[in-house]
Amino acid sequence: MDVYDVAIIGGGPAGISAGIYAARFKLNAIIISNSLGGTAQSAHLIENYPGFGAVSGFELMQKFREHLNLFEIPVLEKHVHSVSKENDNFIIKLNEQDVKAKYILIATGTKRRKLGVPGDAKFYGKGVSYCVTCDAFFYRGKTVAVVGGSDAANMGAILLASMAEKVYIIYRRDKLRGELIWIDRVITNPKIEVLYNSTVTEVLGNEFVEGVKLEDGRIIKVDGVFVEIGSIPECCCTNELGVKLSEKGYIIVDSTQKTNIDRVYAAGDVTTGSNGFQQILTAASEGVVAIKSIFDDIERSKGTLWKQK
Amino acid sequence: MDVYDVAIIGGGPAGISAGIYAARFKLNAIIISNSLGGTAQSAHLIENYPGFGAVSGFELMQKFREHLNLFEIPVLEKHVHSVSKENDNFIIKLNEQDVKAKYILIATGTKRRKLGVPGDAKFYGKGVSYCVTCDAFFYRGKTVAVVGGSDAANMGAILLASMAEKVYIIYRRDKLRGELIWIDRVITNPKIEVLYNSTVTEVLGNEFVEGVKLEDGRIIKVDGVFVEIGSIPECCCTNELGVKLSEKGYIIVDSTQKTNIDRVYAAGDVTTGSNGFQQILTAASEGVVAIKSIFDDIERSKGTLWKQK
Repeated sequence: MDVYDVAIIGGGPAGISAGIYAARFKLNAIIISNSLGGTAQSAHLIENYPGFGAVSGFELMQKFREHLNLFEIPVLEKHVHSVSKENDNFIIKLNEQDVKAKYILIATGTKRRKLGVPGDAKFYGKGVSYCVTCDAFFYRGKTVAVVGGSDAANMGAILLASMAEKVYIIYRRDKLRGELIWIDRVITNPKIEVLYNSTVTEVLGNEFVEGVKLEDGRIIKVDGVFVEIGSIPECCCTNELGVKLSEKGYIIVDSTQKTNIDRVYAAGDVTTGSNGFQQILTAASEGVVAIKSIFDDIERSKGTLWKQK
Repeated sequence: MDVYDVAIIGGGPAGISAGIYAARFKLNAIIISNSLGGTAQSAHLIENYPGFGAVSGFELMQKFREHLNLFEIPVLEKHVHSVSKENDNFIIKLNEQDVKAKYILIATGTKRRKLGVPGDAKFYGKGVSYCVTCDAFFYRGKTVAVVGGSDAANMGAILLASMAEKVYIIYRRDKLRGELIWIDRVITNPKIEVLYNSTVTEVLGNEFVEGVKLEDGRIIKVDGVFVEIGSIPECCCTNELGVKLSEKGYIIVDSTQKTNIDRVYAAGDVTTGSNGFQQILTAASEGVVAIKSIFDDIERSKGTLWKQK
């Protein structure tokens, strides 16, 4: 079995950018990801990745994949079961095979925070959705609620308002957060009503969603509930390796994107990097800084990797 | 005179990305740059800005400019003479006007390191060039030297080899540096000869360049000399503001891109950020982290910037 220089675990903006740079540094690298493109793909509109103007998340990540495909970096679309260390190598256990690597780069991103109230799980796919881009179309002419009040919620409400008859934003704080350009579009949209200081305590319905119950007892009649209450780090294999996490569960990295464990690096939304500002651009940048650091580390430890004439 | 929230000094990848994000956060921002697009524009080929595959520096920065133009951020194409602090504002002195701002973001990048040997200045424009992309075309069928051995030198040699008859790379070290993908292309190109452990001590000629003299006395006959020996930070206004620099002259920033001076931030190649890895992607990322930090700082100091219904 080959030993890779680096196994990149995760295939979002950080993982793909790391793959591109690994190829350019001629590292023997592999990407392991069960969703090449990552959660960025489900954003219906990205207006802040410099150079692209306005683009859908799916289209932008397609461009990332095409860029990666210019190089010969293998991609395994598999789930990682565990990572352990054996002698000088990391062993990454997948379903039917293992991958060995000298370095690992964790770029596993985040996963969506669940609403976690009665009815959330029961009505999932029957009116409860965690993907506005995927499901907005089904609510033409209907009434929907978006739970949350940051960028994803605001963007989601705008998209929903282009199809639904009426959109509630149900948010626990007294003002919306995130990019003011989205907030501006929300508060000037006549179809959107923001319910501040409001918390959903139950999703109501029979076969399908019929409404939500708020903490103060109000019942809001809606046909659909879109949950956009943020994300939590999707750490993989940090426990077994002893990787240090922040209080909120993000992987702590230094300015080289290194974790506290030798030859374990991390990049993108799963880390404390970029001062916690989670963007496609910042994730991608962390991925390439990580690869440069790994390359430098290999160079230092081997003297030179490359024979020149 | 209006007081801007933030004056972005510099218009390369960091400055433009900062401008895009400033607009999205509804900051009252201005960009001051005598070259919107920056030095990145002169790169003949950029293959590592994720999402674009292979693109010229000029075209990529044109895309950045078009993206910026979607927003209403004023751009002053002026030279900054000095920056001072008066009461609570920074005063940025330009040729015929001043600009006032609460925050400044220094994103002035780097400038090219000069060869600094006899003949360098004398033959500038007469065979000595600091821009392969601009001047390679004039050397069809001729013999040229590239001085340097990192990415820019290697990329330059490849472009020159597509036109010139023969290309020397003259490098003071015993092996080339930078992305191995470029080194690979250099050492397998039959038109390129690398002279290792070699230093140019003089550029020779009469009216035009005719050769270079090396430290060991060898004379190499060439029609052109392309200097690619790296860059040095192009700091603006750091002395007068008391901004702390690294030993090599880069602006020291923390993880929020803040300098040691309150309300003075910096981003891109001019800083110590991204662990010193200077790329279009990392510069752009630093620009947006800086704007987020400035936005957060304004929010903290004002309570809230924005009235919501």
